[in-house]
Amino acid sequence: MNTSQAHRATSVHDQRVGEDGGVDLRHHGDAEVAPGMVDLAVNVRTGMPPGWLRQRLASAIDGIATYPDARPAADAIAGRHGRSVDDVLPTAGGAEAFTLLARALRPGVDVRRPVVVHPQFTEPEAALGAAGHGVERVILSADDGFRLRPEHVPGDADLVVVGNPTNPTSVLHPADVLTGLARPGRILVVDEAFMDAVPAEPESLAGRPDIPGLVVLRSLTKTWGLAGLRAGYVAGPEPIIRALRQVQPPWSVSSLAVEAIQACVEPAAVAEAERLARADAPVRERLTSELRRLGGQVVPHPRAPFVLVRFDDGDRLRQLLRDLGWALRRGDTFPGLGPEWMRIALRDEPTMNRFVARLGAVLHRDGHQAE
Amino acid sequence: MNTSQAHRATSVHDQRVGEDGGVDLRHHGDAEVAPGMVDLAVNVRTGMPPGWLRQRLASAIDGIATYPDARPAADAIAGRHGRSVDDVLPTAGGAEAFTLLARALRPGVDVRRPVVVHPQFTEPEAALGAAGHGVERVILSADDGFRLRPEHVPGDADLVVVGNPTNPTSVLHPADVLTGLARPGRILVVDEAFMDAVPAEPESLAGRPDIPGLVVLRSLTKTWGLAGLRAGYVAGPEPIIRALRQVQPPWSVSSLAVEAIQACVEPAAVAEAERLARADAPVRERLTSELRRLGGQVVPHPRAPFVLVRFDDGDRLRQLLRDLGWALRRGDTFPGLGPEWMRIALRDEPTMNRFVARLGAVLHRDGHQAE
Repeated sequence: MNTSQAHRATSVHDQRVGEDGGVDLRHHGDAEVAPGMVDLAVNVRTGMPPGWLRQRLASAIDGIATYPDARPAADAIAGRHGRSVDDVLPTAGGAEAFTLLARALRPGVDVRRPVVVHPQFTEPEAALGAAGHGVERVILSADDGFRLRPEHVPGDADLVVVGNPTNPTSVLHPADVLTGLARPGRILVVDEAFMDAVPAEPESLAGRPDIPGLVVLRSLTKTWGLAGLRAGYVAGPEPIIRALRQVQPPWSVSSLAVEAIQACVEPAAVAEAERLARADAPVRERLTSELRRLGGQVVPHPRAPFVLVRFDDGDRLRQLLRDLGWALRRGDTFPGLGPEWMRIALRDEPTMNRFVARLGAVLHRDGHQAE
Repeated sequence: MNTSQAHRATSVHDQRVGEDGGVDLRHHGDAEVAPGMVDLAVNVRTGMPPGWLRQRLASAIDGIATYPDARPAADAIAGRHGRSVDDVLPTAGGAEAFTLLARALRPGVDVRRPVVVHPQFTEPEAALGAAGHGVERVILSADDGFRLRPEHVPGDADLVVVGNPTNPTSVLHPADVLTGLARPGRILVVDEAFMDAVPAEPESLAGRPDIPGLVVLRSLTKTWGLAGLRAGYVAGPEPIIRALRQVQPPWSVSSLAVEAIQACVEPAAVAEAERLARADAPVRERLTSELRRLGGQVVPHPRAPFVLVRFDDGDRLRQLLRDLGWALRRGDTFPGLGPEWMRIALRDEPTMNRFVARLGAVLHRDGHQAE
């Protein structure tokens, strides 16, 4: 990244330093998990896609000699969100989508003042930086529960990237706060990678072609256990989608990803995702209250399948847990967080109970104060 | 593409016009095949990967919830070609490799005079043009059997792209002709997408780290029927590989592509590819002699799993065959060829015999002269 300035709504924490002297934006949770560890670091719900989906993918292998044709996936996505097929683009996961955006929008020509709202998934800023964009950071405040207010974003920012619900804070921004950020001459990118984990998706903007300049990214990776497959999509105004398509390598979305996209936007799959999301709520609620009982500062109102928590001695705590076989996502590679923060992915209730018990024991042994 | 000049070693043919007023470089064989047609247009050997490979891919589906890790594939590629693992990069197919090259090399900075040797696969020029490179074309002559001589390439070209064996001409350039093109300050890109169809690969440069600036691309798509999966790789000097890696989106190569790369560079698979390639030779020889008997001008010494042939009335002939259910690859979207050319993919012998019989009947009925 060439230039980076921060509009800080909070104080600066010490942060893990990457190659460019800043935070290592290309550190991701999968780097924190070693064989044999219990993985609470990676934000993928399941260790395996459900049987019906594995079966569809296995059947698609027989047709893999043919060059992939993404059009059926585009049709399915358009149907899912009630949009024109010209408004959507299947991608090889969210990472490709951010790369295409960063490449299609020329620095200083199409975009002059790109802003990324942090803490959030670091790939958008990394992709923008790699493509030569000088990214500014808006850093939301923990004191404020990482809530976004329109005045946080500079008025002349012509590209604004925000996650909803946000990784790693688990905050779900209200749709009207986000639509309030849209304006002529601005591209507003909302990363909805985790939106299908919010029951009924009340704050989703994927089906809102009426909002000018709004680009929504979605993923199938998290809910459906497809991180290895690379499958996602973008929905937005036709001219932007066309520009993305022009910089996308041909055949970029594999045949199996096309099959997965079609499968996962079908009404039955959408309904199943909602059932899974509803089942998560009590597990998350219990985890949150246990973390608080143990002295953790949990970001309020978590709505994603993970929670963000701060302990005064969080970095050491995370490493102690790591030695005991529990992988948590470090906070210090997220701009705006420090090493005392950690992100904990939701798993099944017994795993969460074992985790909380282990955490309590470590805190107790370590002389931390627990009620 | 912004600027394009041609060093023509042959006369200019009329060519299919694309959006930019030139040839439609993004036309590919898969666009020529409709359901129910016999596909001699797409250069994929098989309608389905072999059973052992399908089985490995199917097993890999169980692990698809994990983010892909391309390192085992890189290790396997390095072993296959006797190179350092830092010299190789797995890619999501050859199309991604060309996109990464075009993006990593900045126009006017890293590369000032990029040259593509035609006729050849059009994706390299399309990717370079999309990234802002002003590509020059060296167009080889049919009169010369599309042979490449060092004097065809401008001395100060600092990026040279050539296919070996070449798609669509099926010409296999001698290794020493290509290494003779290497020089300090020049990046020489050899697309070996079809090299595994040449028994023993005598002219391959994939295992030659001693040649300065040499970058070799390989594909697994053609021999193994994996076009839908997106799997290939690049081998070259460590600094260039590092630059490509830096512009590659994270997790770009899917878990199944990683599995496929590992499987297809194993000694047993390499040996199987060689057996398949040897079995192709008599089929290609017979097709070539039959085409010549029917008045076709076949490019001499074809070594790839396809042949390029010219008939005086080739465009009409191709369309007549199309109406009869036979899909051939049109020649006019390749710079340096015209509509009278067509590329014919090798299939099994009975299919080839049926095709030749059909072609003979059409030519006879149509009043063409056959010996």
